[in-house]
Amino acid sequence: MRAYDIIYKKREGQKLSRAEIEFLIKGYVEGDIPDYQISAWAMAVYFQSMDAEETADLTMIMAESGDMIDLSEIKGKKVDKHSTGGVGDTTTLILAPLVASAGIPVAKMSGRGLGHTGGTIDKLHSIVNFNTSLSRDRFFDNVNQHGIAVVGQSGNLTPADKKLYALRDVTATVESIPLIASSIMSKKIAGGADAILLDVKTGSGAFMKDLTEAKKLAKAMVAIGKEIGRDTAAYISDMSQPLGYAVGNALEVKEAIEVLKGRGPEDLTELCLELGAAMLELADQSEDHAEAKELLRKKLSSGEALEKFKEMISAQEGNPAVIDDYSLFATAEKVVEIKAQEDGYIATLNALEVGLAAMLLGAGRENKDSEIDLAVGVELKKKVSDQVKKGDTLALLHVNDQKNLAQARAKVLAAYSYSKNEVENKKLIYEKIT
Amino acid sequence: MRAYDIIYKKREGQKLSRAEIEFLIKGYVEGDIPDYQISAWAMAVYFQSMDAEETADLTMIMAESGDMIDLSEIKGKKVDKHSTGGVGDTTTLILAPLVASAGIPVAKMSGRGLGHTGGTIDKLHSIVNFNTSLSRDRFFDNVNQHGIAVVGQSGNLTPADKKLYALRDVTATVESIPLIASSIMSKKIAGGADAILLDVKTGSGAFMKDLTEAKKLAKAMVAIGKEIGRDTAAYISDMSQPLGYAVGNALEVKEAIEVLKGRGPEDLTELCLELGAAMLELADQSEDHAEAKELLRKKLSSGEALEKFKEMISAQEGNPAVIDDYSLFATAEKVVEIKAQEDGYIATLNALEVGLAAMLLGAGRENKDSEIDLAVGVELKKKVSDQVKKGDTLALLHVNDQKNLAQARAKVLAAYSYSKNEVENKKLIYEKIT
Repeated sequence: MRAYDIIYKKREGQKLSRAEIEFLIKGYVEGDIPDYQISAWAMAVYFQSMDAEETADLTMIMAESGDMIDLSEIKGKKVDKHSTGGVGDTTTLILAPLVASAGIPVAKMSGRGLGHTGGTIDKLHSIVNFNTSLSRDRFFDNVNQHGIAVVGQSGNLTPADKKLYALRDVTATVESIPLIASSIMSKKIAGGADAILLDVKTGSGAFMKDLTEAKKLAKAMVAIGKEIGRDTAAYISDMSQPLGYAVGNALEVKEAIEVLKGRGPEDLTELCLELGAAMLELADQSEDHAEAKELLRKKLSSGEALEKFKEMISAQEGNPAVIDDYSLFATAEKVVEIKAQEDGYIATLNALEVGLAAMLLGAGRENKDSEIDLAVGVELKKKVSDQVKKGDTLALLHVNDQKNLAQARAKVLAAYSYSKNEVENKKLIYEKIT
Repeated sequence: MRAYDIIYKKREGQKLSRAEIEFLIKGYVEGDIPDYQISAWAMAVYFQSMDAEETADLTMIMAESGDMIDLSEIKGKKVDKHSTGGVGDTTTLILAPLVASAGIPVAKMSGRGLGHTGGTIDKLHSIVNFNTSLSRDRFFDNVNQHGIAVVGQSGNLTPADKKLYALRDVTATVESIPLIASSIMSKKIAGGADAILLDVKTGSGAFMKDLTEAKKLAKAMVAIGKEIGRDTAAYISDMSQPLGYAVGNALEVKEAIEVLKGRGPEDLTELCLELGAAMLELADQSEDHAEAKELLRKKLSSGEALEKFKEMISAQEGNPAVIDDYSLFATAEKVVEIKAQEDGYIATLNALEVGLAAMLLGAGRENKDSEIDLAVGVELKKKVSDQVKKGDTLALLHVNDQKNLAQARAKVLAAYSYSKNEVENKKLIYEKIT
């Protein structure tokens, strides 16, 4: 087998066999196939695509390129949830205790944030002393004892995906649906999930700006799940404006706690109930979506979900008192108000601009090695369809370092657009694909 | 400027500016841009193509990446002829003295053969002591004094093309019309040609197997000529069967001499007259094609073209006696006859198979470092449309090393196919593009 022939075959739009894909990817990871052949192949894939079987083969080959986490010591069907990333997307922090309180084991490995997109692990670190680096044994013990644990990714997971992604990133071959789909799914498979729930974001703040592309990605991932025998479902949800009102680590954790207390933002609460109900179904804990959703709603109103979050915090060395005393969170030195510049209705609120503003304030990482400031961020006061009068507070900037303040301020101001007429809110959920 | 953005732009089907192409190619040659970005770009070009201006820009950037030969010391308009390569294609050996005898200065730099395709320089080496490594001054002196010199390529010509071609060769990005066209044209420009005549071969033994693709390549090269202000014309000629009867170095030189003596194969003679007439036109020595062709026909019948060949051999230290005494050429130890296996008409004679057979016998190089045997090769006795009876001689194999004899024999046998009915010969020249 020669790499040349495999590139040629894909260039001609032909289907690659599992053996061919394996030869290419293994050879690349082991250094036998040079990056210039892989980048040419990736560009050929960009133009000629891959079918469901090829994409599933690539997924499994990348999943198996490193450690494969075995969650079989944890009882029950393990459902992992993955979001393609957005702004103010705190769903994991809410969903984990919510579905755990309904009896689904949550053994969650999460990532750090990059760019305008936040990461669950960073957010959890705003709870003082919260330990996201549990040993394997303790991770399993926590899940078996408390039904929940959320930790950072460790070990050598999907090195093939890491190497391939880094190459795609510099060769303009990221934007290929089968390559994105296999990259995401390979990590979930290596993480040991029995079933997978995907939240594919679409809109300005999302990786997939375009609804049609988001649908394609969702379908491709669900198709991979089918091919490899892992129950997979995908929601396509809105990220044209930020989810909830808080953007920034500690700010988002406080908002998540508000949701668990039953008084959080409507959009964030609704999305968590939807996704949570779908997780119950994937875990074979419910056959009726409306029923599952109602059950979860009760877990919120009864305080059981909040209790589960408290239990997790304690079990991972954090201070559960934060739940009742928000002053225990790091707080920014200064709060800067941003005021509406005209009368009218908020027509759009660009999620990307808000995410970039939060990053400029220090809430996000510009590159992998950036330090982040857990206290800072953007607190929205008005969102799409809200009526405002000139001078009303649109948002608050929570600021420590004032270096980028003017730029962040300008971004938030620019994120808002106005309409003289009433504006209908965008759909929160566009579609569910199973 | 970033390589990423240029790859992205081409991937999206946008036109690249001269500055962008220069940034990419210069950066690549200087080692600032890695090969994995260039191969991704080349694959994007394969799918999105380049327009005439982009292709001309790439041509000039590659031409100017190394030495640019200045032929201004040689009087007259210098016309270079280039063939895309074929089997038994001895036209340069005939054309050079033919047009020189009509007063056109021939300052020809030729290449060595690779694979099933022969090279003019190898062929000339079958004339004992013929020197193809003249100094720059002597090369110019010879042309000014004798009107002709044929030498090997020397100096650092188009290093950008060399580096890019080597990368394309291993990343399945060779078969892109604008990349092929700019590669060929950059070498001609760097070689100092004022005008360029192209012989684009099509058929089994050619690089462009398909007539439509051959036409596209011819058009792309003529378009480059227009863009950069060098008169360029292109013929598309048949290479579905070998040109002439001889395939192999000394065998082809003998055949070329036969043509110069006015008794060579009809197809080879006709193609040389056509191409030669076009060269006269490009050199502004004739405005009428038929007249130019007639003039050259007379140069053959009068013996002036043969005289010019003799003159060149002497001027480059070879023994001109070979022209009258073929026994001065290296001769193979053994001649093996291949016989027709059935009665009928020759329907096809696969040029690639014949070329590969000659290579197996030692006439061609498998790789750049292979030694070649000047004496060996294939001498065809029957070509397409010839009537044969079972047992008639189809071809003679001139053999020294018998190692691959069986394989070569099988290839020649397989190259022939038969028909019970009369077969019309293929067109020799499909089209002329100006």
